[in-house]
Amino acid sequence: MDVQTQNSQLEKFFNPSSVAVIGASNGLFNLGATICNCLKNYIKFPGPVVAINRKAEEVSGYPGYSSVTDVSHDIDLAVIITPASVVPSFVRQCGEKGIRNIVIESAGFSEQGGEGKKLQKEIDDCAKQYGIRLLGPNCLGVMNNVTRFCCFYGAYDGIMDALNKAGGVSYVIQSGGVGVVIIESLMDDMQGINKMVSIGNKTDVDEADLLDYFNNDNTQVISMYLENVADGTKLMKAASRVKKPIMIFKSGRTEAGTAAALSHTAGMANNDVIFDSMCRQAGIIRLKSISELYSLPKMLTEMPLLRGNRIAAFTNSGAFGSISADIMVDAGLTIPRLSPETREKLSKIKGVFNVNNPVDIGPALPQVYLDLIDIILAAPEVDGLLLMSSIWRDFVIDVIKEVIKMCRHYDKPAAIYTPNSISKIISVRKQFNVPIFDSMEEAVRALVVSYEQLRYLRKKEQYIGADFKERD
Amino acid sequence: MDVQTQNSQLEKFFNPSSVAVIGASNGLFNLGATICNCLKNYIKFPGPVVAINRKAEEVSGYPGYSSVTDVSHDIDLAVIITPASVVPSFVRQCGEKGIRNIVIESAGFSEQGGEGKKLQKEIDDCAKQYGIRLLGPNCLGVMNNVTRFCCFYGAYDGIMDALNKAGGVSYVIQSGGVGVVIIESLMDDMQGINKMVSIGNKTDVDEADLLDYFNNDNTQVISMYLENVADGTKLMKAASRVKKPIMIFKSGRTEAGTAAALSHTAGMANNDVIFDSMCRQAGIIRLKSISELYSLPKMLTEMPLLRGNRIAAFTNSGAFGSISADIMVDAGLTIPRLSPETREKLSKIKGVFNVNNPVDIGPALPQVYLDLIDIILAAPEVDGLLLMSSIWRDFVIDVIKEVIKMCRHYDKPAAIYTPNSISKIISVRKQFNVPIFDSMEEAVRALVVSYEQLRYLRKKEQYIGADFKERD
Repeated sequence: MDVQTQNSQLEKFFNPSSVAVIGASNGLFNLGATICNCLKNYIKFPGPVVAINRKAEEVSGYPGYSSVTDVSHDIDLAVIITPASVVPSFVRQCGEKGIRNIVIESAGFSEQGGEGKKLQKEIDDCAKQYGIRLLGPNCLGVMNNVTRFCCFYGAYDGIMDALNKAGGVSYVIQSGGVGVVIIESLMDDMQGINKMVSIGNKTDVDEADLLDYFNNDNTQVISMYLENVADGTKLMKAASRVKKPIMIFKSGRTEAGTAAALSHTAGMANNDVIFDSMCRQAGIIRLKSISELYSLPKMLTEMPLLRGNRIAAFTNSGAFGSISADIMVDAGLTIPRLSPETREKLSKIKGVFNVNNPVDIGPALPQVYLDLIDIILAAPEVDGLLLMSSIWRDFVIDVIKEVIKMCRHYDKPAAIYTPNSISKIISVRKQFNVPIFDSMEEAVRALVVSYEQLRYLRKKEQYIGADFKERD
Repeated sequence: MDVQTQNSQLEKFFNPSSVAVIGASNGLFNLGATICNCLKNYIKFPGPVVAINRKAEEVSGYPGYSSVTDVSHDIDLAVIITPASVVPSFVRQCGEKGIRNIVIESAGFSEQGGEGKKLQKEIDDCAKQYGIRLLGPNCLGVMNNVTRFCCFYGAYDGIMDALNKAGGVSYVIQSGGVGVVIIESLMDDMQGINKMVSIGNKTDVDEADLLDYFNNDNTQVISMYLENVADGTKLMKAASRVKKPIMIFKSGRTEAGTAAALSHTAGMANNDVIFDSMCRQAGIIRLKSISELYSLPKMLTEMPLLRGNRIAAFTNSGAFGSISADIMVDAGLTIPRLSPETREKLSKIKGVFNVNNPVDIGPALPQVYLDLIDIILAAPEVDGLLLMSSIWRDFVIDVIKEVIKMCRHYDKPAAIYTPNSISKIISVRKQFNVPIFDSMEEAVRALVVSYEQLRYLRKKEQYIGADFKERD
């Protein structure tokens, strides 16, 4: 199937006109009912929704049927959340009804081995027969914050708030638990989610299919949590076609981690060295922690890419200059000596303590900050800035806003860290929509990742023109 | 000088009966005035305070004199915050007045080389002549949250709030900027500060002297940020005498970091490999980031020490089991296979998904959590627990509180991480006073550090008796 045809079928997962929730009933702790409730009361989903259950009972005000084949209107998307054993028969009914998109949220398939494996093969074969695309099984479903659609089971208020905060990052996650951390954490940040898909056992739709999909929608950065890669060649080919930054955090690096992943989403063990080299060849940024999945995208959406590895650090406390120098050296960035011209210009500004890189200042007025940073960003020996000033007065926030404009002007990025408590960082970041990182380590990683993406784009430049030159 | 005599002199830095602020005036932006303001309005310091300035003018309601020698009552502590060039004459006046404790907050000494070095030598010689103990120069001063004393210049409301939250950790910091981050960050945590000393250029009182002091007060954990170590042997000897956990984060690991540190607090370059081996020999826990200075102490104050490296992980989302297994392996912890007896006991509890280590559960009631965790902590093949459950219902907080009691009962620690947004973690941690870490990585580090301290105590057992056995 060509990418365009596939994408238009996948589109129905994110923007269905009508939905059937198979397994939604009024029983105690029924998970399907939580999906109906979300569609009805949070999203106020504009199209028809039906609940499928044995008693054909109404759920959350949506009409009930005992089978999708009893429904008269067309159904774009079926969400199945029943015991695993009855899933195959429902998939078949969906096929007969003409439904071509199914999310299977039920667990109890390959991840349990034996009988579960057989069941998964059965639904897989049935889906192929009808031309159905499957998401899951053993997944959380789909969230689209742009058009406001969500079929996550058990979503609570905290999750639903995210539907009101659309942004540029799309997520593919192999675990609902990680999805929840990402969603909650981005509510503490300035960036928002575009779409999120939980792929679980990924018997059909996988991360490679979704790369092609997100390459062609309004996503700016693609960020993934994977526990295994079943088809490495497919992932590599898809990644090579994608110009947008792709970031992947993968668990199961170690033998113990792999063993744990096996019993979670039924992934096959992968050799970590091979995966690492695959990422480098295909232009995938490999992440080091869950938190990087949500902390780093803002560097790529808010700042120009880093076109060389020469970083100037600027701080209002000498200690941060010294500590960040250690971190930058470890990360493979260089801390260039500033040219005599640059140093002379800096030394003319009153309030500067140290005109060497890292540059540091004492208590100074906003214009002193801006004059110094302008000189640093203009310097040809500097590719990017590590800005570390505590918010000791509110005007530092205004300085940060100006620096963001300067970065666009000079086409050089700044990674910003404000040495304050995390609660202060969060409140400033949210209120003023500025890309502040939680720690110096994270800010340095943001520079590294920005430079990595620049170099990947250069490698892929046959696809995208010669816009992304490194600086000498 | 013997330790006891020295400590009783150092005591006056933390608990003076009377204070002179030399350089406090009513001039615009005068830093000495911020100290007077803090003593008068925040702390309501009960003893006499005087302001020393050219015009002998009153500051914040405190009487002014042009010299300490004009003051009729005794003065325990002088805080000098004047231009560097006049500091030596004030030190001499203090000597004549009989003042034996001076904090010099002014900058412009060794860290600037040349003339500054000479000035520092001058004050040093003068202090020795009079038997004065000096803190600084180029420092922020002293904070004591137990008796509520503080002579930091420029302290703002956020800092002053910390004076109302005393705790068990004492800090020695070579940079005011790092001190501010620590103070603010602990306001987001459950632990509080006992005392904080900023040592700056440490011409006299240094980290080793303060180790001896904090070894004999009510401090529970000693945590230090250093840019250089001038006398390694002295530090090692002092550290060997200390039973309390000592944690040090040191910048200047790399050449670039050292260069930056030199122009900040005038430290000499140290070989990082030597420093590292020194820490191991002297029983000092070496930290990897600023944030560990404030995030890790709670593990040592709230939990028993880890007596072996075999960790059981428990989670309500399989992904965290797999990811944490990778992190634990990297950190040198082991993830033991649970014994057939333990697994049989676990499998009898309804709601468990996976009775292998990492143990994971689905949505379950509180008693299920507690039954499983009780079995795990009781298992002889397990030395400690990594507990990772999202707070998906409020009862998880009650579970955490019960687990803390169980840990004390079994004398095994739990490192707790709740996979939620950091703002949720902070709010739960503060409201319920539970030691939750900000990330899985941090929780694993807490286990590593706990085990490191246990092993250091074993090495030092000639000083402390044979209480701290490892488990086999």
